[in-house]
Amino acid sequence: MRNLAILALLPFALAAAPPKKLTPTDLVSAAPAAAWRTIAAEDLLVMTLEGGGRVVIQLAPAFAPVHVANIRKFAGANYWQGAAVYRVQDNYVAQWGINEAKRALSVGAVANPPAEYVRSARGLAITPLGSPDPYARSVGFWSGWPVALYKDGTASMTHCYGAVGVGRDLHPDTGTGGELYAIIGHATRQLDRNIAVVGRVVSGIEQLSALPRGSEAMGFYKEGFVAKPIVGMTLASALPPAQRPAFQYMDTASASFARYLRLRKNRNDDFYRVAAGGVDLCNVQVPVRPTPGR
Amino acid sequence: MRNLAILALLPFALAAAPPKKLTPTDLVSAAPAAAWRTIAAEDLLVMTLEGGGRVVIQLAPAFAPVHVANIRKFAGANYWQGAAVYRVQDNYVAQWGINEAKRALSVGAVANPPAEYVRSARGLAITPLGSPDPYARSVGFWSGWPVALYKDGTASMTHCYGAVGVGRDLHPDTGTGGELYAIIGHATRQLDRNIAVVGRVVSGIEQLSALPRGSEAMGFYKEGFVAKPIVGMTLASALPPAQRPAFQYMDTASASFARYLRLRKNRNDDFYRVAAGGVDLCNVQVPVRPTPGR
Repeated sequence: MRNLAILALLPFALAAAPPKKLTPTDLVSAAPAAAWRTIAAEDLLVMTLEGGGRVVIQLAPAFAPVHVANIRKFAGANYWQGAAVYRVQDNYVAQWGINEAKRALSVGAVANPPAEYVRSARGLAITPLGSPDPYARSVGFWSGWPVALYKDGTASMTHCYGAVGVGRDLHPDTGTGGELYAIIGHATRQLDRNIAVVGRVVSGIEQLSALPRGSEAMGFYKEGFVAKPIVGMTLASALPPAQRPAFQYMDTASASFARYLRLRKNRNDDFYRVAAGGVDLCNVQVPVRPTPGR
Repeated sequence: MRNLAILALLPFALAAAPPKKLTPTDLVSAAPAAAWRTIAAEDLLVMTLEGGGRVVIQLAPAFAPVHVANIRKFAGANYWQGAAVYRVQDNYVAQWGINEAKRALSVGAVANPPAEYVRSARGLAITPLGSPDPYARSVGFWSGWPVALYKDGTASMTHCYGAVGVGRDLHPDTGTGGELYAIIGHATRQLDRNIAVVGRVVSGIEQLSALPRGSEAMGFYKEGFVAKPIVGMTLASALPPAQRPAFQYMDTASASFARYLRLRKNRNDDFYRVAAGGVDLCNVQVPVRPTPGR
């Protein structure tokens, strides 16, 4: 009789047990296949470093079409072969590439692209962050990108960790895209609307963020110091299918992302005592994963 | 006559030339001696790494007095000799130290410090940031620290780049201070009010941020992998005067800091096309410098 009573009570006991509190990682793992979008191979720029390290960058043609077209031309012409990372400034940027106007023109690149620092916000269906932002009228997510919206009806990409932008000289120079940088520290949002952001690192950021910091002003390496030569940069679409990296980002309009965003604002798993109730744009980190089964 | 006319015009021409637009670095260099506060040697924790690298941490006894007292005891007893950095997670933390309850007690440390995650905001004269914050009712600066203020009348330190906190297990454990971490990526403000922040790195953060990332889950190093052994950690006050590091921070109640903060919100030197009009707390970076003439 006792045993039966215990058995009878079991389902009730199970129901009463507090549900395991989920972490953002739990939510990402549980997201259904429909919540993921595959990144086109033409939008993946693959940097190979000496020793085999790989940095994969997702390009953002919707925000900087002329710069991205230049970058695709550079990649196709093997423009970056033998380039190097020449600047690593702590809590700021790792920067690399080649700035040779003549060579850029010879591969068909546009020498003076327009200032693709903002675009019209019209037609962009934004998933709002729902927390205040110090830099813009509002911020949110569009097609997997963290973006900012301004009073004048424009929208910009944002300098979150891993964002990739185009090195340039002083205004009104915009850079060709031959020199690029990645953010390796706290978001430098003051650069938003002042520089062309062309994408973000989706894999291998540690190949850049763990490089030795430059000893010279602004983190430049001393003349002759080479931390890690770049073997080349190519589009994933130009690689043999077996060598192509393939990634997906979480659809920022999906129910899975809404749940993920809510949890980023309200971490409540066992480690947390107080949930913040808000989050800043660059601390959300849109989930990216290798395409399953490849 | 011509020459005279030109000479006569010169002062006017000089007056009409646009003044050089200052960068934050220009402002910091121009700040008078009165705008700087020297950090007490008892508040500087010096980590020496194999090979001679040095990380200097400013302690925050006003926010975590029991944890800081523990840390001073650990430093005095050479508790950390032979410890190592055992975790480096990209865009998150570098973590190091020793967690041995018995040894901690033997040096007189408090085994279970209170949860010094917040303190009363009463009496803290805050220089407000003046930009919205997603995590707290308001944020600003107190005695050189970026702090957050909450609806319930409490204040906390904030997890900006370089912040140093106390590693702990799950709630209600608070850690002894024997294991520490430094933020090496975008600010992880969700940790504010959930962990004891005991200070910040004022020099040598690149000794931690450029370490190889750990290959295991959460950035832990593989068993047996040692990136950089810790020779020891000691208070600056325990070092011979000639070897003592000495640093100053900019008084966050000074007119110099007010100008600096304004410029952090409105970068307008030649590189910038649009000034943001705001800034987030962790992108302000309270200026710190080696004490001049030492």
